[in-house]
Formats: sequence, C-alpha cells, structure tokens
Amino acid sequence: MIPSAPAGVWAPAITPFHADLSPDPERFARYARWLLANGCSGLAAFGTNSEANSFSVEERMALLEYLVSHAVSPARLMPGTGCCSLTDSVRLTGHAVGLGCAAVLMLPPFYYKGVSDEGLFRNFSEVIERVGDSRLRLYLYHIPPVAQVSISLPLIERLLKRYPEAVAGIKDSSGDWHNTQAVLEAFAATGFRVFAGSEVFLLANLRHGGVGCISATANVNPAAIHQLFENWRTAGADHLQENLTATRAMMQKYPMIPALKSIVARAFADAEWATVRPPLVELSAAQRESLFADLDAAGFTLHP
Amino acid sequence: MIPSAPAGVWAPAITPFHADLSPDPERFARYARWLLANGCSGLAAFGTNSEANSFSVEERMALLEYLVSHAVSPARLMPGTGCCSLTDSVRLTGHAVGLGCAAVLMLPPFYYKGVSDEGLFRNFSEVIERVGDSRLRLYLYHIPPVAQVSISLPLIERLLKRYPEAVAGIKDSSGDWHNTQAVLEAFAATGFRVFAGSEVFLLANLRHGGVGCISATANVNPAAIHQLFENWRTAGADHLQENLTATRAMMQKYPMIPALKSIVARAFADAEWATVRPPLVELSAAQRESLFADLDAAGFTLHP
Repeated sequence: MIPSAPAGVWAPAITPFHADLSPDPERFARYARWLLANGCSGLAAFGTNSEANSFSVEERMALLEYLVSHAVSPARLMPGTGCCSLTDSVRLTGHAVGLGCAAVLMLPPFYYKGVSDEGLFRNFSEVIERVGDSRLRLYLYHIPPVAQVSISLPLIERLLKRYPEAVAGIKDSSGDWHNTQAVLEAFAATGFRVFAGSEVFLLANLRHGGVGCISATANVNPAAIHQLFENWRTAGADHLQENLTATRAMMQKYPMIPALKSIVARAFADAEWATVRPPLVELSAAQRESLFADLDAAGFTLHP
Repeated sequence: MIPSAPAGVWAPAITPFHADLSPDPERFARYARWLLANGCSGLAAFGTNSEANSFSVEERMALLEYLVSHAVSPARLMPGTGCCSLTDSVRLTGHAVGLGCAAVLMLPPFYYKGVSDEGLFRNFSEVIERVGDSRLRLYLYHIPPVAQVSISLPLIERLLKRYPEAVAGIKDSSGDWHNTQAVLEAFAATGFRVFAGSEVFLLANLRHGGVGCISATANVNPAAIHQLFENWRTAGADHLQENLTATRAMMQKYPMIPALKSIVARAFADAEWATVRPPLVELSAAQRESLFADLDAAGFTLHP
C-alpha cells in the first residue's frame, strides 16, 4: 500500500549524536515523535540539516529502522537517499521503500560539477530501475547552493515523461522563488508535488499550487509553520507569513544546523543535543548567547 | 614498515566497469600493472579521475584488496579515502593503512560549503586519531574546482603542527600555480611533500621543491611524464615540459574522464573500458572521432 501523498510541513529532522559523535537513535526517535506531535505532517529525515551526508550508509539505515520500530510511522517519512555513489543511492532507496516510507528525497550525485542533464537522468533512471518497486515515490532535491548540481526543468520534464508514477515531486531549496514558480507552472497541474525549501516561500508556494514546505526551521518552529499551512486561505495568512519570515531571518543570522541544535538543546535541557559532526562546528558561547537573546527578545519559545 | 615516501608520477587510475556498471577488478589490476610498468611510480587509485565517489565504500575496499592480492604492491598505492562522512573516511583510511599502502589521499568532506578551517581540522584530526596507526601517511587533496571546499595554508600549518608524522603532503589540483608555490614556500623545506595536480606544473613544482605530480593524463601518457620527472635537471627539461603541456591541452578539450577511458578502450581494443558511471557520460561518437583525430595528428600513441 502506498501511503497518501506528502503535504504540509515536513522537517528535515536534525540528528542527535553522543559525545563520541555516534548517532543516538533513542534521542532521535523521541525527537521525531515530538516533531510529529507538534505540527509536522512528516519528516524528511536524512536531509541537509540532518547532517545525513556526514553518516555512513549503515548509520543511516540503522537510524531509519530504529525510527520505524519506535512509533514513527513510515507513512510519515521521506528519508534522503541521494548519494554521490549510484550503488549507495540504490541501496538506501530500496531500503526506504522496503520499510514502507511514504517517499524518498533524492539529491543528485554532487561530487562532479558541471555534469549534464543526460548524466543526471541516467543516475535517477538507474536508481528507479534498480529499485524496481512500484511503491517508490521519489522527490527530487534541488539545492544548488549546497550540492552545486542542479535539477533543471528539462530534466524534470524528461524524468516525468519516463517515470510518471515514481517521480512524484520536488523540494526546491534554491532560495529562488522564480525557479519554484517556474516548476509550479510547468508541472504542478499534472500532480507533481512541489515543496518549498523554506517556510519563507510557503504561502506563495501554496497559492501557486504547491503542497507545503520542507524547512530547516520546522525543527524548532513546527507549530507556527503548520498554522500557516492550515490557514493559508484565510484573511490572516499574509500576517502569519510575515511572522514566520521574521523568525526565519532571526535564525538565519547564525550557522543554521548548529543553531537549530542549540535551540533544541536548550529547550530540552539536554546539552549533548548541540553536538555536530565535522566539518560542522557547534556555536561558540558568544553565538549561543546572542541567538538565545534574540529568541527571548522575540518571545520565541519551544515547549518540549 | 613504512614504504619509502611517494615521489614521481602517480596516476589517479581510471576504474573499469562491466556493461552493468559494476567495477571490474580483473581488468583494473591488469591496467594498474600496466601503469606501473610504463612510467608510473605509483597509483593514486580512487581519486577524482577514478570515479571513486561514484562507488560505495565496500566497492572501493574490494577493489583495493583485489589490487594488493594481484601483484600490485601496496607500497605503490595511495588510495583516496576522504569522504563526506567521517565514519566512511575512518573506515577507508584504516583499511588502506592495514593493507600497507604507502599513503592515502584525502579529500575534505565536500557536501557542506563554506565550512570553517576549524571544522576541517576536526575532520582530519578525528580520522587520524581514530585510525590510530603510526604507519598512516596522509596527503591532503586540494581540488577546489570540484570539491568546492579548500585546504588553506593555515589549515595545513595547524595540521602539520599537531600531526607532523601523519600529515605527509598534499596534492594541489587547484590549477593555480601561485597556490602551489605558496604551499611549497611555506612547507616544503620541512619535508612536506607537494604533488602538482597536473603535469602542466610538474617542472615548476620540482624546481621549487615539490616531489612529482598526480595527474589525470598519467593514465594515458605515463612514459612521457615520467621522462620529464627523470630528466628535470637537464637542459632539455623545458622542451619536455612544453610537449607535455601541449598534449594535456589537446586532451583537455574533451571531458577528461570519458576521454581517458576512450583512449584506453582504443589502445587496449576493449570497448567496455569506455563505460562510465552516472552522472558521467561517455564521449559521443563525434567527440570520440575528434579526439582520436587530434591524437593521431599529434602522433600520440599508447602501447598496451
């Protein structure tokens, strides 16, 4: 059975580590359940903000299995499974589909730069063919500021033509509304599901036929983002969007992943949550104090 | 026992695939032996030109084991072991050291962009500490055009200060002679071993205290590059360099990895050698004909 199609606010859940940098599955599952109980419709686990590319394939699979066996429904999971290595992408995607995950979110292979759409088409095509499971729902992950390899409109068109069932949507983290709008105009009418990569574009995305957002700050602000998703057709929607945009701008002054982990560490009174894997670095004491002062001044609270 | 320190011409050996894109260890070992018999002092296997980031960790380890057990001395191997994931880098590095490899060539973690030297220091430091083997000789791999994450001079200095034995050298594939020269001036006198990332800079590198080059085109032109390495102090060295530079320029008109594989496929009369993994794409028929015409016009030959 294929779970109902993802929509709403999905969090690229941050991943907790022990002090020795090993992933902490128990803390991870507890946090996942908290996100789902506080406004997230689902979890795009193992995304950029999850530090997923800083894990081995085995670490990712073990964490996903732990979630699913600890009260996180796979119908609410869209794990990241796109790697530089075709064989890794196939393995992770097959594993996620086998566990019954609603979808997967797939980066293009991101080591080589300046690759062709033909090469990227072959990559996604090989993954889909090799996984060979009609339950697969693949969301393309367009994040050129980080991956430096893009998902172009002609590539989407070609993939949709060849795999209309499997290629289900996209997360657009370009930060460029014009790109998101172009994708919506080209493909949304046929059922292609567009998630904005930031809640800054949530209202605009919904108004143009998108289905929600997958956003870093959904890790710490899920209820407010969900509130806009639930009320986007109401008169107050623009005001809700303004508030979300202001909160996002406040957090974006700091390195995002360490900032999110610091906020969660404080709210949960659990200092180890702030741990990141290299090459990331946790916030300095000064950054942390400044962030917390900003949050307090804005009346921002997170209730564990 | 630690093998003698690498010097001379090292090839980032291209990796052969079967038609189904699985690596072909037998063909790989045969080619590795050919490179070593034809001018290469060693093999920087699993580099950028090897498509190593397109393999799983297990595929890399299996290929390396096959080489070592099929007449390729580990003393002549410097496998690439730097991954986005710390745990993968530790696993591959420990494996290579355990097999007795002369050194490893280590990319920085390359998914996150704009990371700090502190974060990169922690990455390399964790790898060195966790491998915990005094035989480890680590060469930093600086290739900003592809990795988009750089190895800065202050980072090298800090690593050398903390790990003067383990941090043995660098491959500079910046394509920027001024950077190579700055590295040489800062660190070569203390025994830090600098490989140019292209034979275009081989003579300049040797004249300024470098030890050789690790170059894509060593896959197909090892004898001529070795000839310059052997004769760099002679009167004819500049002429040899000019010839190498011209040959390189001819090949650089084409996508490098597919071009190298096409040249080897032709020379070895083995069409399957031209296979690449996505996201790379083999040369088109027109590109191949143009490349071969260029090579023939230049009198370039490769004897299997």
